Amino acid sequence: MRTFKVTVGYDGTAYAGWQLQLNQPTVQGAFEAALAKIVGREVRVTASGRTDAGVHALGQVVSFDCETELPADVLKNALNANTPRDIAVLAVEDAPAGFHATGDAVRKRYRYVIHDGPTPDIFRRAYCWLYRERLDVAAMQRAALPLLGTHDFRSFETHWPSRTSSVRTVYALEVRRGEGAEADLITIDVEADGFLYNMVRAIAGTLVEVGRAKRPPSWPAGVLAAGDRKLAGMTAPPQGLFLVRVDFKSAEDPR
Amino acid sequence: MRTFKVTVGYDGTAYAGWQLQLNQPTVQGAFEAALAKIVGREVRVTASGRTDAGVHALGQVVSFDCETELPADVLKNALNANTPRDIAVLAVEDAPAGFHATGDAVRKRYRYVIHDGPTPDIFRRAYCWLYRERLDVAAMQRAALPLLGTHDFRSFETHWPSRTSSVRTVYALEVRRGEGAEADLITIDVEADGFLYNMVRAIAGTLVEVGRAKRPPSWPAGVLAAGDRKLAGMTAPPQGLFLVRVDFKSAEDPR
Repeated sequence: MRTFKVTVGYDGTAYAGWQLQLNQPTVQGAFEAALAKIVGREVRVTASGRTDAGVHALGQVVSFDCETELPADVLKNALNANTPRDIAVLAVEDAPAGFHATGDAVRKRYRYVIHDGPTPDIFRRAYCWLYRERLDVAAMQRAALPLLGTHDFRSFETHWPSRTSSVRTVYALEVRRGEGAEADLITIDVEADGFLYNMVRAIAGTLVEVGRAKRPPSWPAGVLAAGDRKLAGMTAPPQGLFLVRVDFKSAEDPR
Repeated sequence: MRTFKVTVGYDGTAYAGWQLQLNQPTVQGAFEAALAKIVGREVRVTASGRTDAGVHALGQVVSFDCETELPADVLKNALNANTPRDIAVLAVEDAPAGFHATGDAVRKRYRYVIHDGPTPDIFRRAYCWLYRERLDVAAMQRAALPLLGTHDFRSFETHWPSRTSSVRTVYALEVRRGEGAEADLITIDVEADGFLYNMVRAIAGTLVEVGRAKRPPSWPAGVLAAGDRKLAGMTAPPQGLFLVRVDFKSAEDPR
């Protein structure tokens, strides 16, 4: 039996999210169908992030155990040949026995993308939040700072109260406006040891309230301290969200 | 009666091309439906380029005559509110009486986009030709040079023999590889006084034969001189093609 670590990118537009659902197209379903066709039996796989409907991935990590003699690069090509065109298998590696994409992840990075130009960018409409007002990025950057570090993030969780701890450590929270052809694009990168349900989208929706000057830059820190989801901004729409990267503790991922 | 010049961008993925067709979604149909809803009667419009199914536009120009009191910017906002999300009205201007988007166009620029990276870019699959072999851009650039200037381009026309002249003047034919995050993208920009049917896609398909070293850089010049479509490369797929810009002779477009 071998254990595999597979890095996958996908356009989530056509899917009801990563996780298997009855009678719904899911990324997991498409991936497992391709894998079954190649290895000749059903294999259950696990992902680092259970992305929601419409959410994309640049570097989702999937793990599974499977008996096969195929070299990793042959398996990669076979998976790409058997998955739909909106799923790309970026890397296939042999992992140590027991490697688990969810349990062994120590850090994940998500990106939320907002377009705030005067005319909606039709080619990005499935890959960002098309926002009609110009946003003040400097104010959003100031507002984001107090969210860095270890806090109880229950104000930014959709299902509250959480059954487990809602304390997470945010290592990076970077708000940037693009340059040149991307001057109408704002990216919010969030890196943390783990994420609550809809946490990035709730943070994005909250920072936008500051960006449009509806709330002062000091507001999100107060929302965080209050521990009440009702006080925060809206959950930003799913199509702006990307799972960018997953880091693992073990030596097999040196990054 | 006023004459309008409207600049439109669209994602052509969902459409059977620009031009009205029975029982098929077309960009012209969607545009005219929006316009009819706003002005209260049917108005027939004309475009500078009759883009094919799956072909996109960054700066298509549309002209029409219409009785309305709406200021141009109000009409622009109303059109954007009434067209589907894959069509964006970028500018609405009053034009001199008699202005005609097809007849008055003196130059058009198309762009053909190829992705030749090792892994298909899932987010660009509807906006480029995903090509699996690495292409030699320097060879393509050399091959493109003899196509500049005034020539009979019937070797690069799908319907041959043409009923009218197939002589066109190509002012620019620029092959470039992107940088940084776009290093796997090749753009072929073609600017000419007019285009034969499928001309840019036939030129792209021909240059790709050089880029993959199946043909020498001297080959496209010979294809041009022979005047025979069967000698040229394949017609590149539609989703890589963009109508970038249209220039007009009159003073109302100072570019």
